Amino acid sequence: MNTVQILFLHWLWHSCYNRRAAIFIMPAPASESALVEIIRRKFALRGQSRGLAVGMGDDAAIFQIAPGRLWAISTDAFLEGNHFSHRWHQPQEAGYKALARAVSDLAAMGARPKYFTMNLAVPAKLAGRWLNHFLNGVRQAARRYRMNLIGGDTTRPLAHGFFSANFMVMGELAGYQPVLRSGARPGDILYLSGLAGGAQLGLEMIKKGAGRNQRTRALLRRHLRPEPRLELGEWLARQKLATAMIDTSDGLSTDLQNLCAASGVGATLSAASLPVVAIPAELRRLALHPVRLGLHGGDDYELLFAVRPRDAQRIPAYFKKVPLTRIGRITHGAKITMDTAGKIQPLRASGWDPFR
Amino acid sequence: MNTVQILFLHWLWHSCYNRRAAIFIMPAPASESALVEIIRRKFALRGQSRGLAVGMGDDAAIFQIAPGRLWAISTDAFLEGNHFSHRWHQPQEAGYKALARAVSDLAAMGARPKYFTMNLAVPAKLAGRWLNHFLNGVRQAARRYRMNLIGGDTTRPLAHGFFSANFMVMGELAGYQPVLRSGARPGDILYLSGLAGGAQLGLEMIKKGAGRNQRTRALLRRHLRPEPRLELGEWLARQKLATAMIDTSDGLSTDLQNLCAASGVGATLSAASLPVVAIPAELRRLALHPVRLGLHGGDDYELLFAVRPRDAQRIPAYFKKVPLTRIGRITHGAKITMDTAGKIQPLRASGWDPFR
Repeated sequence: MNTVQILFLHWLWHSCYNRRAAIFIMPAPASESALVEIIRRKFALRGQSRGLAVGMGDDAAIFQIAPGRLWAISTDAFLEGNHFSHRWHQPQEAGYKALARAVSDLAAMGARPKYFTMNLAVPAKLAGRWLNHFLNGVRQAARRYRMNLIGGDTTRPLAHGFFSANFMVMGELAGYQPVLRSGARPGDILYLSGLAGGAQLGLEMIKKGAGRNQRTRALLRRHLRPEPRLELGEWLARQKLATAMIDTSDGLSTDLQNLCAASGVGATLSAASLPVVAIPAELRRLALHPVRLGLHGGDDYELLFAVRPRDAQRIPAYFKKVPLTRIGRITHGAKITMDTAGKIQPLRASGWDPFR
Repeated sequence: MNTVQILFLHWLWHSCYNRRAAIFIMPAPASESALVEIIRRKFALRGQSRGLAVGMGDDAAIFQIAPGRLWAISTDAFLEGNHFSHRWHQPQEAGYKALARAVSDLAAMGARPKYFTMNLAVPAKLAGRWLNHFLNGVRQAARRYRMNLIGGDTTRPLAHGFFSANFMVMGELAGYQPVLRSGARPGDILYLSGLAGGAQLGLEMIKKGAGRNQRTRALLRRHLRPEPRLELGEWLARQKLATAMIDTSDGLSTDLQNLCAASGVGATLSAASLPVVAIPAELRRLALHPVRLGLHGGDDYELLFAVRPRDAQRIPAYFKKVPLTRIGRITHGAKITMDTAGKIQPLRASGWDPFR
């Protein structure tokens, strides 16, 4: 379904709803962002919302709780079958990742993590040893990110035997402003932290049965143990260096589109400058394309951010050993393109979307 | 499994864990409260937690965000198969109830609802019309409770076809203190709002195919459209009348046990004074026992609270048309008993527990 069709269905839906027609029409949303848009319209803010600085639609909601003190709140689901599989993931790794990926949304605002809640739906067969290891993984992440658990909910799913967890994470911004998705302006330079496609490569390797040895560890780790760029995000926010920021969870092409849509801008990437992961010689048989992995592979949890040209010289090549790479720039309009050796082609958002 | 066995397994688990033994033993928890206890021990607070007034273990976490201004935060899961079924529940009813039951935890602290987040896992077959009605139900509840949606997460479960939603609700207490579960003292008088067992009776009626007509509506409504006792909760907190409070979501016997455990006290109920729901004549064939429904039936979302004897005269018989009934009192020790015509018997927590 293309954008025009989606817009038509939105219009249809809204015109029916607004007339309070007896017939409600809502087609199954064609993408996650279409569903989010439906929810956003249905739940527009009403009445007073004192202190709410940023509502739906960014990586986290932001509350001003005192002068110079902001709270960031975000939530994330972690489902068996979507986000992990018993075939490929150890429970402790799953637990660590479950919290780490929620925390990445705080990094994308520049917030420092503080608290979290955890809702667990645990089938009986996983409620013993497996759950114990999962909780140990969550705890490991909580300690690393200095977070305290403040509550949650536990149940056993009665309709099926699959595990799921839902996290709410809270972070603080003390004395500085968050970086939103919406602040990018034409001319800004786009940067990406770390390497693109590493997590997807790690997953492909695990799926193909790559052993966990010293040599593969670094690659697998990118998938199994993501490290949200908390220090980088906070530094960019404190220094007011980023005009817009998002974490790359669904894949660079999709996350870039989300950033551009929020900012009302376009972008052009330079294929040659993408910091794509190198595919080891012995993995050539997997026929993986590094640029494709880098553009559309999910789960990297790197930071994609825009910087005013005059501030670009203040962006170092490395921030605490993490490379920061210029990958393109923000443009007028809404088009997102890629420049491959002078050939400009549209770049479609083709990252992870469970509704597609 | 009895308490001694559970305590033994806890000891075993902790002694293994503390010695950092290679073997981790965690038996599948025998009840939801056993699992909560395991999580509580694993995630004890560490480091600074400035502003956190109440952590895990009550109906909501409480933050002091400014002098005289507190925030209450709670989460709730709503799973197909556990909390609703397509056979018996219309999507709009499910949506309304999903948020209402989360809000009930705020009522139990005396907080006024403000914001919520919503995580949805929507299988493809429900992503159109059904989801639209569900969201309309959520919106109806949000408007009634004057809450704004501030974020969430949407996905499609890939491993199965069942719906689930997870809510985080935030409320405020402006200029007064919350009522915790832990403040009940021996001698305090126990009160219950509304009727006990109504929601369970409504569910039984729906399951047996009772039609939705004028006469059955009021009874079905208790199950389909719970009304968290927000005004009552806030009034009790503002007036400092309740020493401890909990909402009856799992069933009176279980919720009473949770309140008593948190307060380190026992309780005795008077069977004769329980405000149990009356079973209509034409439903006699269902062989439902009103006192059993009242003690163990879930989903009522009434408030159970303790009051110092000297304050009892300030508790009215009705609060805005909702009856408030003395149902027993708090005792020394940890025993929970029921007095049936002078015969004192132990009252076991036999409400809803998905792990049992």
